[in-house]
Amino acid sequence: MTPAQALPAVLDKIDADLHQSLERLFDFLRIQSISTDPAYKDQCRSAAEYVANDLSMMGFNAAIRPTSGHPIVVGKGGSQGKTPRVLFYGHYDVQPVDPLDLWEAPPFAPRISMLPDGRKIIVARGACDDKGQLMTFVEACRAFKAITGQLPLPITMVIEGEEECGSKHLFDFVKENADEFKLDLALVCDTSMWDPTTPMVTTSLRGLVYEEVRLTCADRDLHSGLFGGAVQNPLRVLARILAAMHDEDGRVTIPGFYGGVSELPPQIKADFKGLDLTPENFLADVGLKVPAGEKDRMLIEQIATRPTAEINGVIGGYTGEGAKTVIPAQAMAKVSFRLVGGQDPQKIRTAFHDFVRVRLPADGRVEFQSFASAPATELPFDSPVLAKARAALAAEWGKKALAIGEGGSIPIVGDFKRVLGMDTIMVGFALDDDRVHAPNEKFDLTSFHKGTRSWARILAALSA
Amino acid sequence: MTPAQALPAVLDKIDADLHQSLERLFDFLRIQSISTDPAYKDQCRSAAEYVANDLSMMGFNAAIRPTSGHPIVVGKGGSQGKTPRVLFYGHYDVQPVDPLDLWEAPPFAPRISMLPDGRKIIVARGACDDKGQLMTFVEACRAFKAITGQLPLPITMVIEGEEECGSKHLFDFVKENADEFKLDLALVCDTSMWDPTTPMVTTSLRGLVYEEVRLTCADRDLHSGLFGGAVQNPLRVLARILAAMHDEDGRVTIPGFYGGVSELPPQIKADFKGLDLTPENFLADVGLKVPAGEKDRMLIEQIATRPTAEINGVIGGYTGEGAKTVIPAQAMAKVSFRLVGGQDPQKIRTAFHDFVRVRLPADGRVEFQSFASAPATELPFDSPVLAKARAALAAEWGKKALAIGEGGSIPIVGDFKRVLGMDTIMVGFALDDDRVHAPNEKFDLTSFHKGTRSWARILAALSA
Repeated sequence: MTPAQALPAVLDKIDADLHQSLERLFDFLRIQSISTDPAYKDQCRSAAEYVANDLSMMGFNAAIRPTSGHPIVVGKGGSQGKTPRVLFYGHYDVQPVDPLDLWEAPPFAPRISMLPDGRKIIVARGACDDKGQLMTFVEACRAFKAITGQLPLPITMVIEGEEECGSKHLFDFVKENADEFKLDLALVCDTSMWDPTTPMVTTSLRGLVYEEVRLTCADRDLHSGLFGGAVQNPLRVLARILAAMHDEDGRVTIPGFYGGVSELPPQIKADFKGLDLTPENFLADVGLKVPAGEKDRMLIEQIATRPTAEINGVIGGYTGEGAKTVIPAQAMAKVSFRLVGGQDPQKIRTAFHDFVRVRLPADGRVEFQSFASAPATELPFDSPVLAKARAALAAEWGKKALAIGEGGSIPIVGDFKRVLGMDTIMVGFALDDDRVHAPNEKFDLTSFHKGTRSWARILAALSA
Repeated sequence: MTPAQALPAVLDKIDADLHQSLERLFDFLRIQSISTDPAYKDQCRSAAEYVANDLSMMGFNAAIRPTSGHPIVVGKGGSQGKTPRVLFYGHYDVQPVDPLDLWEAPPFAPRISMLPDGRKIIVARGACDDKGQLMTFVEACRAFKAITGQLPLPITMVIEGEEECGSKHLFDFVKENADEFKLDLALVCDTSMWDPTTPMVTTSLRGLVYEEVRLTCADRDLHSGLFGGAVQNPLRVLARILAAMHDEDGRVTIPGFYGGVSELPPQIKADFKGLDLTPENFLADVGLKVPAGEKDRMLIEQIATRPTAEINGVIGGYTGEGAKTVIPAQAMAKVSFRLVGGQDPQKIRTAFHDFVRVRLPADGRVEFQSFASAPATELPFDSPVLAKARAALAAEWGKKALAIGEGGSIPIVGDFKRVLGMDTIMVGFALDDDRVHAPNEKFDLTSFHKGTRSWARILAALSA
């Protein structure tokens, strides 16, 4: 029985086992695997153990592989000889949960809830990004094993624990073990649908440079009455630097920033114009009206194919209740850049450092800390595996699957191409209202269920 | 025996009792009376009780008078009939202690330490501002009582507990009880020396407007990959607003800001030029070199007689360890203005609100919270009591006492003039390196000791 022949029974099995699949996901979601905060180190380890154990129980040869950060789970299964040999990538770590007081229920107590429009949702930190998404693939594999006794293809899973803090150790791990991971095709489930009924293959991802800037002026906090007027305030210096990063038209002003950014081919631009994406609709969902990006660009370009500079966090001085008349000694900002096309992360980083330094007063000091650095990545539009994946998605959702770029970054995808020579098919079931990285993160139950079915179809299609 | 006749014995008594005076001050410093943080409400009450009890033991008729915030201690002593009847103002509350990790020892465990240059110092939050300073006056009164059995003048003490959070209830309290407090002269000990050997009467104080600004863009935190490029970031809006508050020459750009600001008389300006205050010396003490104020102004003008706009705190987005790719929904800044001459606090506040609103995107929202609002205040240079105070200080320190403006704000001093018709003599013993409002606040032992002696001399001089 070929995977294609087994597919109807596999899909039935997925439907029949949905409740058990959800129980497994909930167990996974209860683990507080916040990778960026060292206080959660043990919980990250527990999440890795959960994944390794689950893969082992399905018959994968699974191991927890150490790094000098959080460990990486590697699982290998399926009969050798079949093609394509696929590498599935996901991550067991999640974002921090602050501000905690905006969560309607504890972030690590997953629950099923219902939206006013009747959609059932899974609510928890990681429900979507990436625990819920990666489990759609795992559950599809499980259903194949249950029905056919084997995986439809040779599958190697790489599930890391540092995606939310820059995948610092994954890159070297993949490079050092290139023989294990240099397969035929990579699959990733960490992206979005176009809308709740329209599936999508993500064909490009923006890269990311993430920097922390710490400015110091005086050697201690000072009284703004006694020193105000003469002493430089690092919050003022920082405000001027951050304000200068964009011009009045929303363009990034850092010299050389747009080097390597190409204009879209006319045909793609025309396709984009045909999409039903208006700034009004997109922004109304988050309580806004006015696009804040480059003035001469379509919204879909602003969020998918144009680079950005973003201020992710600022702190300095007195931020508690009430008033404190202080001139702080220090101010800190976290700044990140989304990259497209051929933008070089190292050049962007250096240009940003120069941009900051040239704006410092002569007696000001700056320290930088770098958290992420990954170029953009693109899948050729004429790839045969892309065609197979789109057809499988169309069969599941009853609607043509779009092939389009996405604004987020999955740094390792660039390395799959550069280091391992593999293309990556990115299929995901996130929706715009999933509150990814924010309080009350959710994943539609339909995304989880039909996502699992979608992967079963894609695996069957790839094996044909 | 007149106060002037008793003075030598009073000064000897102060010297002999220095150790006991310090023990009393240390007991006072151990009370964590942080007024701006509601968590310390009981401790503020304890500090009020400490003061009231101490005054009662000296024979003052002392009471803890309630307000809807922290209470105000009022103590009345001295034979009626003598003049001038003086009102002494001080405050028992202190600044918050954050960042706590920069303190070399716990902030409320006072200790005597020694600087590398041999100066002995009292280290604790409030050691200078204002517990140490106000106790110099209290100890001078105590020495007079001990030697002469009575106070040299009728003295009413008003010791409040909300100076560090805007003296919110003191103003109404003084107005409502104007009959009690409308005396002949106010005395305040909350200001500085010119340098460690040069005493000073402060003849003007800058006013203060303190505002909190909270900007909201989207209705929740968003993923900077999925939304970055299209969604407005309140940190970017805030940076542009804060950066726009000053022009390239350090002038404040808020429309109408300089209304009511006069140029100094030529003679005063000439006196200022004769001072040994260079930007290099003043700034080197705090690790800086370049004056950040209005480019065409002397340093003494920048810190004493010119108005300022200062950013006291900013927070927004992710500020923890590591990287989080978030576009925050909100950003907050605390901004304050030091006012001089006839600048109207209400007009400044309104102009600032307008300045912010006009820079908001159409879908951005702002909330303001106001914490302080006080105009500047000035003492006439030809005042006879000023001459007496300067002579008394010169006798103690063996050096001419300067009469000069100061950059800080003591909001109630303006009301003493406007509401009660009283001038205020401000004499204080703080030094530039006292780390007021910062970690490791200190007060020189010499400031405390000779400060107490100075007040004994001033009281004797005023009673003559």
